[in-house]
Amino acid sequence: MKIYNFAAGPAVLPLEVLKNVQKDLVEYEESGMSVMEMSHRSQVYQTIIDDAEKNLRDLLDIPANYKVLFLQGGGTLQFSMIPLNLLKVKAGYINSGHWSIKAISEALKVGYVDILGSSEDKDFTYIPRITNIPEKDLDYVYYCDNNTIFGTKFNYVPETKRPLVCDMSSCFLSEKVDVSKYGLIFAGAQKNVGPAGVTIVIIRDDLLDSPSNLPTYLRYKIHADKNSLYNTPPAFNIYVCGEVFKWLKRIGGLDEIHKRDVEKAGLLYNYLDSSTFYTTKVEKESRSIMNVTFNTPSADLDCEFVKDAEKMGLVNLKGHRVSGGLRASIYNAMPLDGVKELVKFMDNFAKKHQKG
Amino acid sequence: MKIYNFAAGPAVLPLEVLKNVQKDLVEYEESGMSVMEMSHRSQVYQTIIDDAEKNLRDLLDIPANYKVLFLQGGGTLQFSMIPLNLLKVKAGYINSGHWSIKAISEALKVGYVDILGSSEDKDFTYIPRITNIPEKDLDYVYYCDNNTIFGTKFNYVPETKRPLVCDMSSCFLSEKVDVSKYGLIFAGAQKNVGPAGVTIVIIRDDLLDSPSNLPTYLRYKIHADKNSLYNTPPAFNIYVCGEVFKWLKRIGGLDEIHKRDVEKAGLLYNYLDSSTFYTTKVEKESRSIMNVTFNTPSADLDCEFVKDAEKMGLVNLKGHRVSGGLRASIYNAMPLDGVKELVKFMDNFAKKHQKG
Repeated sequence: MKIYNFAAGPAVLPLEVLKNVQKDLVEYEESGMSVMEMSHRSQVYQTIIDDAEKNLRDLLDIPANYKVLFLQGGGTLQFSMIPLNLLKVKAGYINSGHWSIKAISEALKVGYVDILGSSEDKDFTYIPRITNIPEKDLDYVYYCDNNTIFGTKFNYVPETKRPLVCDMSSCFLSEKVDVSKYGLIFAGAQKNVGPAGVTIVIIRDDLLDSPSNLPTYLRYKIHADKNSLYNTPPAFNIYVCGEVFKWLKRIGGLDEIHKRDVEKAGLLYNYLDSSTFYTTKVEKESRSIMNVTFNTPSADLDCEFVKDAEKMGLVNLKGHRVSGGLRASIYNAMPLDGVKELVKFMDNFAKKHQKG
Repeated sequence: MKIYNFAAGPAVLPLEVLKNVQKDLVEYEESGMSVMEMSHRSQVYQTIIDDAEKNLRDLLDIPANYKVLFLQGGGTLQFSMIPLNLLKVKAGYINSGHWSIKAISEALKVGYVDILGSSEDKDFTYIPRITNIPEKDLDYVYYCDNNTIFGTKFNYVPETKRPLVCDMSSCFLSEKVDVSKYGLIFAGAQKNVGPAGVTIVIIRDDLLDSPSNLPTYLRYKIHADKNSLYNTPPAFNIYVCGEVFKWLKRIGGLDEIHKRDVEKAGLLYNYLDSSTFYTTKVEKESRSIMNVTFNTPSADLDCEFVKDAEKMGLVNLKGHRVSGGLRASIYNAMPLDGVKELVKFMDNFAKKHQKG
């Protein structure tokens, strides 16, 4: 049976990429070894990581005064590394839910935090509209662009003259971004980019300086000075990310993938909007095109939905334990057919259970 | 041409494991997806990580009062996590070279360090014999068991009543170890265990408590409480490690692999000892069976050796930049034939260049 995987991350990868990785798994090109066996100091691996960085720079049009780092530790470690490197006195955070709260709690271990806005009043079902940020004394302004759990996404870039720091984990490479508006962007790979175990950080040169008494691994400057090869990197994971970057370039870059993502999400949202059975709590202007959250009329039916969908090969549709309900994560690598199958299933399920 | 990869890490993996991983790369068993695409909260992945842990526990006979953690950040992050979690006032470190010096410099950011012994006087070509450790006030005693760069290995376990902490990165799973003698053992995967990007930590329960103001990712307790699933783990990397553990069990466990490792190293050391062309600086009783360091009569010939060997498919024999010379890393997955080919090449090279 054909399986469509709607997991929020780790998530579906392009089949073409998986097949290429499979082909070269035992021996990469004519190197005589697997990428997993390669010294990270070898010429062949240097080419792999250089190409990965170059293709990412091309895709996002990253300016020359930004470094690209491939790190370990996921978003969780970034929640700490950001304040440890950048927070001298006080930082501003926008609270759009679970992952920004985690980031805030790590920042509070380092310094003062101003909450610039929050959507907690409505269970994070919308994105707070933040204007006129009181910039004085803020070392940086932080927000989480796409909120995987709630299915919300910023449809604007907060305006500030202070360095803007953004967790783009779950919308990274789903659209063009003006990198020059940011001081630091980070993204865990396991949504749109590759296997879990690598986190991409894009950081402006002037933010690299950090206290030298920090643990060495936690200093951006150390990794930047050595082009992510200060210590042994997650070499195979970076290689797979590089293959995804190549795939994105082949299909036409971020304009093309964004078009596809909008089409997929549109299909699902249009169906939800037309349905009298399903509801979605997220305000229209805050909708994510990566994670679509919705509910049937009851928690019991939500459960049944997940089970029945699984029987049809539509898996991982259960919402996050924090929010409950249902969630379809439809990242870059989810084919349009997967969304079509989902909508078809949803419609059948609604007809079966709808009273009236 | 058949390639034998003598890299110090990332390093050679068992061909059988690579072939299994390749077979299942696009679809793992009948899950409908690659391991790289699996939610780390899914039942199928839970089985993968549980099996990996169980097989590792079997191999090393890890007592029940020890936790096994699969972390990110490599040895470099462990150099910091250890003092941040365990160092209240002062710790004792044995200095056996490069990697212990790195660990010491991270500990010095946290507290006081007593250097319990050092082999710096002879360029780390031997292992200091430490007895009667002055235990008073030491939060723990730290050493690096196998020194990849210099080719040395402790042939004893330092005796102490304080928690013993050991970097076993480059000799992990090459022999049985009495885990109960240790408070904490760690090992980067990329030598004997799997692809870079996962670090195994074995820690005794009573050492898990740590300051709650530490960055969350850096607290052993957080990872232990969630069985390495506090945040998204390097899921694919852990899976490959698990396949290596299965392979080790299939071939007969650590007794069998140790026998093979001793045979391989014996072949190489016997040849070196009988040679009037090659020299090895390491004292006999401190020899590593994982990393064999040696020299030709000159640095120029060392260079030529590396180039000529490469032409014969014997790659990555250049010594570390710190020590110079030549190095053959012959980890668990290096076949005996690889060492035989190396000795044959060495002998031919010696005959070609030996004066007399």
